[in-house]
Amino acid sequence: MTDPIRVAYFSIDDPVEPWRDLCRTLTPPVQLQAWPDEIDDPAGIEAAFVWHAPAGMWADLPNLRFVQTIGTGVDHLLAHPPPPSVLLARTVDPTLTEQMVEYALLAVLACHRSLPQHLHHQRQRVWGIPPYADTATTPVGVMGTGEIGSAILSRLQSLQFPLRAWSRSGRLDIEGVTVFAGLDGLAPFLADTRILLSTLPATEETHGLLNADRLRQLPAGAHLINLGRGSAVVERDLHACLASGHLGSCILDVFEEEPLPADSPLWQHPGVIVTPHAAGVNFATPYAARLLADNLQRVRAGQPPLHGISPERGY
Amino acid sequence: MTDPIRVAYFSIDDPVEPWRDLCRTLTPPVQLQAWPDEIDDPAGIEAAFVWHAPAGMWADLPNLRFVQTIGTGVDHLLAHPPPPSVLLARTVDPTLTEQMVEYALLAVLACHRSLPQHLHHQRQRVWGIPPYADTATTPVGVMGTGEIGSAILSRLQSLQFPLRAWSRSGRLDIEGVTVFAGLDGLAPFLADTRILLSTLPATEETHGLLNADRLRQLPAGAHLINLGRGSAVVERDLHACLASGHLGSCILDVFEEEPLPADSPLWQHPGVIVTPHAAGVNFATPYAARLLADNLQRVRAGQPPLHGISPERGY
Repeated sequence: MTDPIRVAYFSIDDPVEPWRDLCRTLTPPVQLQAWPDEIDDPAGIEAAFVWHAPAGMWADLPNLRFVQTIGTGVDHLLAHPPPPSVLLARTVDPTLTEQMVEYALLAVLACHRSLPQHLHHQRQRVWGIPPYADTATTPVGVMGTGEIGSAILSRLQSLQFPLRAWSRSGRLDIEGVTVFAGLDGLAPFLADTRILLSTLPATEETHGLLNADRLRQLPAGAHLINLGRGSAVVERDLHACLASGHLGSCILDVFEEEPLPADSPLWQHPGVIVTPHAAGVNFATPYAARLLADNLQRVRAGQPPLHGISPERGY
Repeated sequence: MTDPIRVAYFSIDDPVEPWRDLCRTLTPPVQLQAWPDEIDDPAGIEAAFVWHAPAGMWADLPNLRFVQTIGTGVDHLLAHPPPPSVLLARTVDPTLTEQMVEYALLAVLACHRSLPQHLHHQRQRVWGIPPYADTATTPVGVMGTGEIGSAILSRLQSLQFPLRAWSRSGRLDIEGVTVFAGLDGLAPFLADTRILLSTLPATEETHGLLNADRLRQLPAGAHLINLGRGSAVVERDLHACLASGHLGSCILDVFEEEPLPADSPLWQHPGVIVTPHAAGVNFATPYAARLLADNLQRVRAGQPPLHGISPERGY
């Protein structure tokens, strides 16, 4: 029988046990050890499976060759990366992607069908139907066309919204989606987007991308959904656009600072729905455990891991 | 050129103009006259296009042969029906069906992804993730398998919920949906439904169908969505199930009494989202105008109208 591959585990959110149970039965067998308490032989650890690992973790593990994030986001890892010789990958799990798709559909439909306005009426016990906008003339624009943005666009095709997408490269091959590329494409993309949905990751290039100028390029009464990373939206500018009525409503799952500070005006704005970075919830799935085991084998065999992270690219 | 067919128009909600503009250009031409003000020759009116018409309308129109409702619901018409010789039909418009499908997806995802709990947290400025339930183990059960119920089930197939349906007849042919029929099938249907969505019309048979006994057959923590008619749910029993915590949350668009009375406890229950009978909003569409003209021709030719209403059946 093969010796199990020993992998250090750290998550700011979740205990090791469900993942350990899943990993035990894999081929090759993988033994997760929670860092720091369960690590008895640091030199025997060749990989780590982490979510928001502290910087100090890497110095403890001299023979680390590979790190995989437990979820899709990688900003926490690149903020305190291990030495450059260590290969990096992220978990791209259809379960997590499906959760993000569900949240995106929920948020797009909530904006379209005036849910924030209904909730405002409900608090005042008012029975009144907000104006109805025809779906066929309500363009939805998705920023970011990676795994999650593409999955959202594909699924939105089952509804009647005109669909648009924006990304750096403009690479996307989904029928019926109008694609805009790069900073030059941003103004025309925004000008006709009624419901804007960001899946943008936290990178240098996306930092503050949706500032006052850009938000003002949206048509009056447009809606904003953010389920990528909070750093892509300048929150001060967002407040101003909400206060002026330029933005109709916002559904926000991510923020510049998380948890959202108690004194943020976003908590109580009647046009805003706040959720606590809950669009995608990491939980132990057989798929993700299998991906970890496959990547451990690939790295041992000198192959690049699946869903590898490029520190230069930022994701 | 053919004389236009003269049709009396009455709607409790909407003016005649947008419909008149659409009908003018049809073949055969249809001339809408708002009742009572615009009717100059009552004997020349052979049909009516109505929404919540008062009982007195019929006595005014001696040669009425056909009445079509402007929306899908028919309870308002059957409460004060014209003489039995008058043929009845309702408007089944894909635009309206699509609106109902959007609302249903929004409501199912809102229940599944704990939106009422998120909103409760938001009001208290609390950052906390509610437990996540795996979609694949969260059965959604739709009551009523008419045009709208079937369309909702078809569209829900793009998500990963196990799907169930209940109707009087059990007739439904949608792949992957477990079907339950009649009163005997109701208990097993309810027992494994986590998110219950009613599209039931207001009939004698559906009146009070979801009472305390039936609601208690749902698993603890189940969610209820009503976008059919309020009379299918006993609201007093619903309050009790919310108060005891047996029901997790409710999204209600229809009520025993509409507008929902200001003193209803539903307005302020943290687990309840109230919308004002807004899941489907009637608005003038070319499709519905075309259906009216086609039905006028059919009735003149002695054929049954499309989407005919049977007063015995109740819809």
